[in-house]
Amino acid sequence: MKCGFLEVSLIKVGIVGGTGYTGVELLRLLAAHPEVELRTITSRADAGIAVSTMFPSLRGHVELGFVHPDQAHLEQCDLVFFATPNGIAMQQARSLLEAGVRVIDLAADFRLQDVEVWKKWYGMEHACPDLIGKAVYGLPEINRERIKQARLVANPGCYPTAVQLGFIPLLEAGLIECGSLIADAKSGVSGAGRKAELPIMLAEAADNFKAYGVSGHRHLPEIKQGLAQAAKQEIGLTFVPHLVPMIRGIHATLYARLKRDADVQALYEQRYKHEVFVDVMPAGSHPETRSVRGANGCRIAVHRPQQGDTVVVLAVIDNLVKGAAGQAVQNMNIMFGLPETMALTHIPLSP
Amino acid sequence: MKCGFLEVSLIKVGIVGGTGYTGVELLRLLAAHPEVELRTITSRADAGIAVSTMFPSLRGHVELGFVHPDQAHLEQCDLVFFATPNGIAMQQARSLLEAGVRVIDLAADFRLQDVEVWKKWYGMEHACPDLIGKAVYGLPEINRERIKQARLVANPGCYPTAVQLGFIPLLEAGLIECGSLIADAKSGVSGAGRKAELPIMLAEAADNFKAYGVSGHRHLPEIKQGLAQAAKQEIGLTFVPHLVPMIRGIHATLYARLKRDADVQALYEQRYKHEVFVDVMPAGSHPETRSVRGANGCRIAVHRPQQGDTVVVLAVIDNLVKGAAGQAVQNMNIMFGLPETMALTHIPLSP
Amino acid sequence: MKCGFLEVSLIKVGIVGGTGYTGVELLRLLAAHPEVELRTITSRADAGIAVSTMFPSLRGHVELGFVHPDQAHLEQCDLVFFATPNGIAMQQARSLLEAGVRVIDLAADFRLQDVEVWKKWYGMEHACPDLIGKAVYGLPEINRERIKQARLVANPGCYPTAVQLGFIPLLEAGLIECGSLIADAKSGVSGAGRKAELPIMLAEAADNFKAYGVSGHRHLPEIKQGLAQAAKQEIGLTFVPHLVPMIRGIHATLYARLKRDADVQALYEQRYKHEVFVDVMPAGSHPETRSVRGANGCRIAVHRPQQGDTVVVLAVIDNLVKGAAGQAVQNMNIMFGLPETMALTHIPLSP
Amino acid sequence: MKCGFLEVSLIKVGIVGGTGYTGVELLRLLAAHPEVELRTITSRADAGIAVSTMFPSLRGHVELGFVHPDQAHLEQCDLVFFATPNGIAMQQARSLLEAGVRVIDLAADFRLQDVEVWKKWYGMEHACPDLIGKAVYGLPEINRERIKQARLVANPGCYPTAVQLGFIPLLEAGLIECGSLIADAKSGVSGAGRKAELPIMLAEAADNFKAYGVSGHRHLPEIKQGLAQAAKQEIGLTFVPHLVPMIRGIHATLYARLKRDADVQALYEQRYKHEVFVDVMPAGSHPETRSVRGANGCRIAVHRPQQGDTVVVLAVIDNLVKGAAGQAVQNMNIMFGLPETMALTHIPLSP
Repeated sequence: MKCGFLEVSLIKVGIVGGTGYTGVELLRLLAAHPEVELRTITSRADAGIAVSTMFPSLRGHVELGFVHPDQAHLEQCDLVFFATPNGIAMQQARSLLEAGVRVIDLAADFRLQDVEVWKKWYGMEHACPDLIGKAVYGLPEINRERIKQARLVANPGCYPTAVQLGFIPLLEAGLIECGSLIADAKSGVSGAGRKAELPIMLAEAADNFKAYGVSGHRHLPEIKQGLAQAAKQEIGLTFVPHLVPMIRGIHATLYARLKRDADVQALYEQRYKHEVFVDVMPAGSHPETRSVRGANGCRIAVHRPQQGDTVVVLAVIDNLVKGAAGQAVQNMNIMFGLPETMALTHIPLSP
Repeated sequence: MKCGFLEVSLIKVGIVGGTGYTGVELLRLLAAHPEVELRTITSRADAGIAVSTMFPSLRGHVELGFVHPDQAHLEQCDLVFFATPNGIAMQQARSLLEAGVRVIDLAADFRLQDVEVWKKWYGMEHACPDLIGKAVYGLPEINRERIKQARLVANPGCYPTAVQLGFIPLLEAGLIECGSLIADAKSGVSGAGRKAELPIMLAEAADNFKAYGVSGHRHLPEIKQGLAQAAKQEIGLTFVPHLVPMIRGIHATLYARLKRDADVQALYEQRYKHEVFVDVMPAGSHPETRSVRGANGCRIAVHRPQQGDTVVVLAVIDNLVKGAAGQAVQNMNIMFGLPETMALTHIPLSP
Repeated sequence: MKCGFLEVSLIKVGIVGGTGYTGVELLRLLAAHPEVELRTITSRADAGIAVSTMFPSLRGHVELGFVHPDQAHLEQCDLVFFATPNGIAMQQARSLLEAGVRVIDLAADFRLQDVEVWKKWYGMEHACPDLIGKAVYGLPEINRERIKQARLVANPGCYPTAVQLGFIPLLEAGLIECGSLIADAKSGVSGAGRKAELPIMLAEAADNFKAYGVSGHRHLPEIKQGLAQAAKQEIGLTFVPHLVPMIRGIHATLYARLKRDADVQALYEQRYKHEVFVDVMPAGSHPETRSVRGANGCRIAVHRPQQGDTVVVLAVIDNLVKGAAGQAVQNMNIMFGLPETMALTHIPLSP
Repeated sequence: MKCGFLEVSLIKVGIVGGTGYTGVELLRLLAAHPEVELRTITSRADAGIAVSTMFPSLRGHVELGFVHPDQAHLEQCDLVFFATPNGIAMQQARSLLEAGVRVIDLAADFRLQDVEVWKKWYGMEHACPDLIGKAVYGLPEINRERIKQARLVANPGCYPTAVQLGFIPLLEAGLIECGSLIADAKSGVSGAGRKAELPIMLAEAADNFKAYGVSGHRHLPEIKQGLAQAAKQEIGLTFVPHLVPMIRGIHATLYARLKRDADVQALYEQRYKHEVFVDVMPAGSHPETRSVRGANGCRIAVHRPQQGDTVVVLAVIDNLVKGAAGQAVQNMNIMFGLPETMALTHIPLSP
């Protein structure tokens, strides 16, 4: 790209694992990014196939084909996104970092600072525990300055993004009892990934609603870690995820007890007034997941039913955008000194 | 119907307001009830139209046409169901009762014992406050004996049915802190009735999820009244309803703090072991709304995540059956000395 | 079951392959059938598991567990339903028939009379071509008399049921040009079976519509065979199936050219006036798939747009009931001399 | 906007009737258009309300409020879009045109050249029949040159766009019998507009499929007019629209008889090779509506099942984009000499 006499080179980007929903969503966002050159996208199983054959929505927009990881030359990239299952990025991160490549992992490999907790919840040894401490948790609204310098970013999970953005103002302000937080979260089925599994088939999941993972969900320790940092103390959290018969969207309904009276509406507006991707809605609002469909925003409303001491926070995101690929691009923009909103100004698709 | 030499007369049933979802669901259930003679069904707006013209699903099963209320001769019925908006049944109940007709109101006119609370939440004067005390709240699992004798039954709301069945065992046992109960409830759109309103159009409500009525929903006082009776003390409740992009079903996710350790699974199994319409699922289960689709059951699972002191109860019903028409037929069966399950043995439709 | 002094024994029924949608639907229907004793249900993969563990909707209604085929003692049954993939029933039919067991195959093994055509479309050798001629095609509306005597019934496919019931009156009357029939058919996703496959996941199939199999679908030769028999001549048919983002239901939109003027409404009413499961709707109607949801009916409307010579037939069924399990039970009733509607009088679930 | 020393003024745009789906979709597209200044948007009923209050998806993107038509000063615009019900644009077009304002009507007022046909199908007198002849039918793929000069554009209907783009190559080439064309079309519910009507409520339309308007739909004469122009002769068409339980999308399945053998795949590729918004997919493809969700494209596949003489064309569009607002913006770009794709390069949202 030329800007006057100065030649500015594009960011050479590689994507590892491009056949899932976070992968195709990264492609949708990056294909329209003016400062990005999509260099390669890997898939072990689908090497040789044109990306647009698998995803016809990309016909005319993405010319790449899937490349076998061994032929991908990822070390020639400036930045590699891992849109892979858990446990892949940690295998490859070290060599890429040593080659000077920056890494954003959309999976969970570098999200938990305590490697023992990670091992317990993810059921495997960690391949590079020493890198965990160097990874920056990529939630810009709390970590923007550290992300600017990061070489390795752990992109937050979808539920953790919604729950943390919803709870943080109250916790930072020390307004709520930290021992008994409740996060009742609901997600569209794309959150389960592009996998052929019975419970997320249309004939099973449509016209139906259920909770899952009540005994324990992998996002629980990630959320607790983030909330504890904001609260500067341990927190107690009950987290119940539910499956909604819709494609995209997360709605987190959060409950906490106020320790003292406060203007919570003003608190949220103040906390997020400079955050372009967090929209604190007018008092009394009920944000809908479709109001952020396809966009990188998080909309939040705060309620105190019957003016009691229970505060109810409603937070919505698109799990594939602010909850995954969009936040990853936001992190990339921050890491590379670009305007944070670049290529992320989509207006939500409604209806 | 003949049974040996004894002529047993059928129950002559009238339905007031048969053009809504509770009305058509009553028709589905009653048309197959062996002890019921459907005598009349009224509709002011659609008088003269065949029921099966409006509801083709009833073609071949229901021959009635809608009758104008003035021509319905409801006083000749043994039982009249009101499947009307709030505020109608209270206009007509007295004269029907005086004529010896029993009444089941599927709306809210007789649900709240405190008429002042009723006026506040329903925004109108009550037409017959003296009858409120004579009405029996028709939740058989707590009121069966009183229902047997009732002349006027207030059929519970859909959310209140699910939330009460979910909380009652804990409250009756005195196991939980009563001041900070949370009911995060989710309903399919048929709960809003058969009304043409923007927010429940497919193009608005599909592929979407949102909360509504967080500041206060009419079912809140009804639930609090029932829970307080079970607890024998005042209770504090935060109730947040949500709209799910599905047709039928309610899923209540309930949160409470245990005051002492207890085997909650055994508690629930014990409480409901004689209740044919309440199914306590095995420990660790996640009941799905579709598992009761079209049927009068309520399925419940109890969890204690991470063995902490927060108990999470999951309760599902079909809002139109156990949450409305089915429960009304159950009440009718009890009132008329019939087997409680008569005409209510549908196997849920799945998938 | 006792009827006066005469002890009438129940029909001992076995189901082979009970873990798919036709299997669970058979269970829903047969569990409420007063003349059936469900003896055994087999599953190679899930032997030992309670049926109601896999299908919670059956809790309280079906006590059976899945049995390994080798332990099933199917030869002790009076009737065995095969709710299996194609190619299974033909392996076991001979020994069962020789043991005096009657067989209803819900798959395609015995639907096509021409074994060469069968081999071409199903891609395998036929295990017992000599039995094909003894099998009766189980569409009661055309084959009732033969079904009464049948030992082996080939239950029709879902699309073929809707398309044949829609076209037959015109073909039998010789009213239409047979060379260029068009069947534009639309099915809910349960028609694809209870299989975890990408295209029928909710995130792929919801909020979406597409055709599939335009170059050739296995139901094409079955439909052509049936239509040719009705027409008593070869017919030409273009059959295009589509996938609808719904769970159950088939809508067939059929197009044909009239050879001469005729009262097609009267023709259909006459043809089906004694068919309890075929409902010819009033002229001008548009039957909806939900109007037969969960029920064994087929609703049909006939149109002549702008009074031209193109006749448009709209036919809807529930693919799992009249298109599979319900029709199988209807065939069983006929084979065993029971009232044809026994246990098939469900009122469709609407909404 | 400045470009060197030359001041280039933005196109001043007004929208009449901005509260429907075509209105909000125009806002989504135009708010991101670099050459457009959104001046005013009118609504009689909602004057004074912020657009983003009604459509929260536009929060942060559109600052306008709805203005009463009397205060809108539309005559100061360069271009006015009518996103109104039928019969409104014809009331106001003359005065706007006389004031030098260009007009694009997204409703049907100027689509039919024969005013008698228009009156018959739309049930009212036409307010300015003399303007009909001056209006240009805004289907760029056939009328691009005339659109460049147009002052008044009749934006095509959604079904007509899909059906015409699908049939035109065959008709222009004279390859098919014109007397018996069939268009079996399926639309998402947003095609019915943002109106609270029973049949398009979620509880009525979800998990359901039906045809409608078989006896005659207003888009029939519009389609016939366009096809006849392409064929240069009268055509016979049977058009059957269906309602799909999805939000956006049209799928047209088109049937025609070939008069002689031809390479239809090559024909379509040739016809559309310069059309950026029409994608002829590889032979054997089945385009899905979601592959154009939110985008201005039309994807087409051509089939000849069993190599017979029936050709089956599958064409998909997003009814709100290429079928309405997107095509209107495309027309605007052409009328104002801008690149045709400006602000229309959205990548479809998938999943």
